[in-house]
Amino acid sequence: MALLFKSETDRASLWRDAFARLAPDLEFREWPEVGDPAEIEFALVWHPAKGDLKRYPNLKAIFSLGAGIEHIFSDPELPRHIPVVRMVDHGLTRGMTEYVLMHVLRFHRNVPELEAQKQAGVWNYIDYPPAWERRVGVMGLGVLGGDAARTIASFEFATAGWSRRPKRIEGVECFHGEDGLARFLQRTEILVNLLPLTDATENILNARSFAQLPRGACLINAARGRHLVEEDLIPALDSGQLAGAALDVFREEPLPAGHPFWAHPKIWISPHVASVTQPSTAAKGVLDGIARLRAGLPLENVVDWSEGY
Amino acid sequence: MALLFKSETDRASLWRDAFARLAPDLEFREWPEVGDPAEIEFALVWHPAKGDLKRYPNLKAIFSLGAGIEHIFSDPELPRHIPVVRMVDHGLTRGMTEYVLMHVLRFHRNVPELEAQKQAGVWNYIDYPPAWERRVGVMGLGVLGGDAARTIASFEFATAGWSRRPKRIEGVECFHGEDGLARFLQRTEILVNLLPLTDATENILNARSFAQLPRGACLINAARGRHLVEEDLIPALDSGQLAGAALDVFREEPLPAGHPFWAHPKIWISPHVASVTQPSTAAKGVLDGIARLRAGLPLENVVDWSEGY
Repeated sequence: MALLFKSETDRASLWRDAFARLAPDLEFREWPEVGDPAEIEFALVWHPAKGDLKRYPNLKAIFSLGAGIEHIFSDPELPRHIPVVRMVDHGLTRGMTEYVLMHVLRFHRNVPELEAQKQAGVWNYIDYPPAWERRVGVMGLGVLGGDAARTIASFEFATAGWSRRPKRIEGVECFHGEDGLARFLQRTEILVNLLPLTDATENILNARSFAQLPRGACLINAARGRHLVEEDLIPALDSGQLAGAALDVFREEPLPAGHPFWAHPKIWISPHVASVTQPSTAAKGVLDGIARLRAGLPLENVVDWSEGY
Repeated sequence: MALLFKSETDRASLWRDAFARLAPDLEFREWPEVGDPAEIEFALVWHPAKGDLKRYPNLKAIFSLGAGIEHIFSDPELPRHIPVVRMVDHGLTRGMTEYVLMHVLRFHRNVPELEAQKQAGVWNYIDYPPAWERRVGVMGLGVLGGDAARTIASFEFATAGWSRRPKRIEGVECFHGEDGLARFLQRTEILVNLLPLTDATENILNARSFAQLPRGACLINAARGRHLVEEDLIPALDSGQLAGAALDVFREEPLPAGHPFWAHPKIWISPHVASVTQPSTAAKGVLDGIARLRAGLPLENVVDWSEGY
C-alpha cells in the first residue's frame, strides 16, 4: 500500500521519517512523484492540486494535513464518495492554544502600548485588571476552540464561547446560534475566532459584528482569512471601536505586498503559523485511521458533507 | 486600630475601598496623613520612607505590598523586632504567571522575528518545535516561581526549576545549589528569573551564567533589577549568545533616559508591571494576618531575617 503526501508548507522529510519509524511497510510517495496511481490507497494533503485526487482508482481515504478542510473541498472534481478526515492532532491543538493564549495575554497585559512606550523611551505604569474582570470570547468550540476556551478559562478569564449548536464546557459561558451571537459579542472584550470556514461562517467578522463588541475590543483571527471582511477591519481600528487585531490568516496568502494590513500599526501579522500539525504526534493518528479502515471500523473525524466541516 | 498605607504606585483608593468593605472598623490612614503615631498598629507599605517605620510605638506588623521585601529591609533604621510579612496574593501570583507565560510563548513562537517580518512586509514561514522539545527553566521556586513553573509545565514545555534548597514540583525537573546551577543553565533555552533578592542572588545573571546557557537562549527577568549585571547583558545579546531579553525590573527605576537598554532592539522593556497586588483579593490576606495577631496565633509568610526573604 502507498500513501500520497502533498504539501508545499509541511515538512515532508519529518513525515517520511515519522511513518518510516511507525509503519515501515507503508510506502510514502511525495507528490508529484506518485508512481503507479493504482497503488495509492491513502492521501495526506494540504491544498491538493485541483483534479488530482480523482486520479487514484483505489483511494480509500483523504487525510487533511490541517484542521480545516476547505483546501480539499474547493476542488470541484473531488471524488465525493471518498471520506475526508480532519486532522485532529495533540500537537496541532496545543500549538493553536499557545498562539491564542499568547495573544489574549498580549492584549490583556497592554503589550502594544508597552511596546510603543519602549520605542519612545517612556516609563509609564499601565494598569491592568485581574483576569477574572477581563472578558474573553472564543468563536468556534470544536477541537481547537474548545481547547483554547478551556485553557483561557483556566487562567480565570471571564470566558465565553459561541458555536452554531449548543455546547457545554465547564467554566465557559456558552452561547449559540444567531440569537446568542449578539449577546456573546456584546460581552466580549477580546474576541478569538476559531470557527470552521463554511458558507454560514464566511464574512462573520464584519462591520456589524465589530459594532456589537464593546468599544476598544481586540480581535484574534487564527481560523481562516475568509471569515473576515478585510475592508471592514481598518475603519473599525481607526475609529477606536477595535483597539487591535492579531491576524494569522488572510483572504489571499501570502498577504500581497502593498496590502494595507502590512503598514497598519494596530494590526499584528503572522504568516499562517498559528499552529502546525506535528508529524511526531500526528502520524500516529493517520495510521490509526488506516488501521480502522483495514479492520472495517468506522473512521473518526470524518467531514460531514452536509455541514461542510 | 489604624493601618498605615504607603505607596506611590499602588492605588490607595482601591485599598481603602477594599478595607472599608471587609473591615469597616479598621481606620485606613494614607501616608503622610498619619494622625497620632501611637494609633498605628499595622503598616501596609511599598518603599516606606527611610526612618519612618520606627516612629510608631504600637506597630505590631509590617505588611509588604509586593512579593519582595528588600524595599523595607533597605531602611537601616527599620525596627527589627516587628515582623515583616511578605505579600502572598492570588492576584499577584497569577498576574506574574500571566506575564511569564506570555514571554515564554513570545520567545517559543518566534514573535520577535515575526514582528520584524511584519515591519518589513515579509511573509516567511518560521518553524517552531512542539512545546515538549522546548526547554524552559525557572530560577526561584517560591510562591511565584513555583506557580509559574507548574503553569509552564502544564503547557508541556520541558520545564526545569532551580532553587537554593532542594524542592519537588510535579512535572518540573528540580535542580538546586551552586552545583545544580550549571547543569540547570546548560539545559535551559528560555530562562525565567523569579528569585528573591538576597546577598546570595544579587548579580546572579551575569556573563558567566549567560555563557553556560545554550547559544541563542532568551532571558526573562521579572524579579529584581539587581539580579542582573546590566553591563553583561548587551555583549551577550550582540554576540548572539542570548537571542533576546524581556526585562520588567532594573537597577534604577524608572529606567533612566539614555540607558542603553532603551534603544537595544533585542531588549523588551516593561515599567515594573509584571504583576501587581490586587486589592480585591489581597486585602483579605492582610486582614487574616491582623486577625491571627489579635488571636495570638503565629503570622504566616513572615520574613526570616537570617535568610533575607
